[in-house]
Amino acid sequence: MFDEKLARKAAINLKALRAQKPLIHNITNFVVMNFTANALLAFGASPVMAHAPEEVEEMVSFAGALVLNIGTLTHPWVDAMLMAGKKANELGTPIVLDPVGAGATAFRTATAKKLTDTLSISVIRGNASEVLSLAGEDSQTKGVDAVHGVDEAEGAALALSQKLDATLAITGPVDLVTDGKRVLRVFNGHERMGNVTGTGCTATALIGAFLAVDGDSLEATATALATYGLAGEEAASESKGPGSFHPALLDALFNLNSEKLEKKIRIKI
Amino acid sequence: MFDEKLARKAAINLKALRAQKPLIHNITNFVVMNFTANALLAFGASPVMAHAPEEVEEMVSFAGALVLNIGTLTHPWVDAMLMAGKKANELGTPIVLDPVGAGATAFRTATAKKLTDTLSISVIRGNASEVLSLAGEDSQTKGVDAVHGVDEAEGAALALSQKLDATLAITGPVDLVTDGKRVLRVFNGHERMGNVTGTGCTATALIGAFLAVDGDSLEATATALATYGLAGEEAASESKGPGSFHPALLDALFNLNSEKLEKKIRIKI
Amino acid sequence: MFDEKLARKAAINLKALRAQKPLIHNITNFVVMNFTANALLAFGASPVMAHAPEEVEEMVSFAGALVLNIGTLTHPWVDAMLMAGKKANELGTPIVLDPVGAGATAFRTATAKKLTDTLSISVIRGNASEVLSLAGEDSQTKGVDAVHGVDEAEGAALALSQKLDATLAITGPVDLVTDGKRVLRVFNGHERMGNVTGTGCTATALIGAFLAVDGDSLEATATALATYGLAGEEAASESKGPGSFHPALLDALFNLNSEKLEKKIRIKI
Repeated sequence: MFDEKLARKAAINLKALRAQKPLIHNITNFVVMNFTANALLAFGASPVMAHAPEEVEEMVSFAGALVLNIGTLTHPWVDAMLMAGKKANELGTPIVLDPVGAGATAFRTATAKKLTDTLSISVIRGNASEVLSLAGEDSQTKGVDAVHGVDEAEGAALALSQKLDATLAITGPVDLVTDGKRVLRVFNGHERMGNVTGTGCTATALIGAFLAVDGDSLEATATALATYGLAGEEAASESKGPGSFHPALLDALFNLNSEKLEKKIRIKI
Repeated sequence: MFDEKLARKAAINLKALRAQKPLIHNITNFVVMNFTANALLAFGASPVMAHAPEEVEEMVSFAGALVLNIGTLTHPWVDAMLMAGKKANELGTPIVLDPVGAGATAFRTATAKKLTDTLSISVIRGNASEVLSLAGEDSQTKGVDAVHGVDEAEGAALALSQKLDATLAITGPVDLVTDGKRVLRVFNGHERMGNVTGTGCTATALIGAFLAVDGDSLEATATALATYGLAGEEAASESKGPGSFHPALLDALFNLNSEKLEKKIRIKI
Repeated sequence: MFDEKLARKAAINLKALRAQKPLIHNITNFVVMNFTANALLAFGASPVMAHAPEEVEEMVSFAGALVLNIGTLTHPWVDAMLMAGKKANELGTPIVLDPVGAGATAFRTATAKKLTDTLSISVIRGNASEVLSLAGEDSQTKGVDAVHGVDEAEGAALALSQKLDATLAITGPVDLVTDGKRVLRVFNGHERMGNVTGTGCTATALIGAFLAVDGDSLEATATALATYGLAGEEAASESKGPGSFHPALLDALFNLNSEKLEKKIRIKI
């Protein structure tokens, strides 16, 4: 059955997040900035978006985690990501990467690889197609949507995790999280999350929030995804479509509490 | 009365869209990116936003349509639009243009003209003031809002349509769509759509979605506007203001189906 | 008790805004663009976002007010703010500045100072930490969140207001507004506004809307903040969390009327 220790860990992480309200520094895409910021606030973190070369090093030095997302990338943004990332590495601040659309264009695949080659990344979260493309396997990404299933990418995720010494998370109907040794599966979530733009990007940001309070990247990632997935389940039951799902998801994130998490988190080892 | 064949065509287009889920490549403004992406998803398409010169040609080569919107333009974005547009023309991929704010500043008017001079555009959708300014008539645009009525611009739309060999759509209380020969009028819609930012931009994106599945630009445009307008009518009846209208509009788009469309689409030839 | 004259002034300003629908030119951050535009529309103004050097001077020449917000600043955006601001000064068009994150990084503090040194600004709205940093006092800003209380910053606000000949507004549980001589306190508002990103930025934009119709900067600012706060109170009573609060806030702004304002505006001199 589902792991009780990890359900408790989710509750502990949420409590710590709300007590500490760590600054989460995001260099992310234009489409999801507002949703991501609101989700981080509802979760309990203090989000900031900053991408100017003049300030990213200073900003990340106050942050509990750095979130890098290549969703609407251009060269100056990639440079800012590298600057902020190097500073984060110096300070031991965890970095989470969302390789949006890797596999869809050569520029995205190359950028994702440049980031993983240059920086020490704690966690990478993507869909199966993105993770396959990062692993150098022949993969296709349709714009920013996956055309491969999570299980297809398990081998690639394990290998990539070992190679990069990073936690890999592939999200889909069931999420897979691995640090190259252990494999966790997260069963929380709802298909409606796939009907709203930026739900994947937001998952990545919430992983950043838990990384700021939990030194175990694998558990921080799995508990963040499960907690977010649980909010998605609650929001789905209150909504009539993707439009009403969006505010309901933020409400659900905001109204999460330890009791709910201990009862309803569904992670398997 | 309303044309039954076009009501059926709307239903057919929606079905085809949901079966094929074509990638719609958007180079659009910062204000509406999130809403546009969510509306395309709710409609049934697969949206992507990409504007880097390194990737726009590659991205558009996978797309069923290219949506260009000059709402928060700067020179690098215009260059990206031209690159993506030329590639789309090469591949025969339809382009839809939203000349947001043409007539308001010389830069916007000149950019819209540069795009229409350089590229072969399938459809242009704007408000009456924007279309008048593109036709070179003395027009004013108040920021991004029309100060002219749709009927005032009918002559300009017909002339411009013939000159550019493009379908022209002027949206307003009743939308006018012409390919320079035929003129269609779309009666679906609700005034509340004017109280929310980006509803025009989103109309343009949804036209892109139908262009990806319907080779007849005039009919694709009119049926997209009517289908969107119908969703607007349903959303208005469920909302208390522009705030609740926004999620209700996405829900309504998502919950559209063939039966509703065949009954409630109101287009006149 | 609360000032009745200012409650009536709020009603007068809202009426004038809706009659005149002035164009409000925003050069603002990526996170809040959509929310700000929708809030201005719901309030009764006509928002436009434009930041290209080729058009900001022309665009601001049609505007009733210019809103500058440094939330996701880079150098080209700062240059556009300076260009638009100089033109606004030439034309006597009021400028409102939101120094988002001043105090958090040297770049933001320096930019905010450059803007206030170069331009004649009518109103500056920030949180206590941002205002303290502008006043040159030792302050800290946690990303974009205040770590100081409003009353701590009263002295700094008065001094800065006199030095810059500008109205200063510090928002928090109770907002403080001063022109260097008079001090007004605004009691409308709801703590939930702190759970949604961009509510401060939106307050700044709505001040811009009232500045376009009210030549008294102090009163325009206080009545805008009180009117917005009242909408926040109504939205809070209709929402279950920050997600549903967001659309409810836009609905409430849209549904405000003179009677409500005269009864419920709470400003003290």
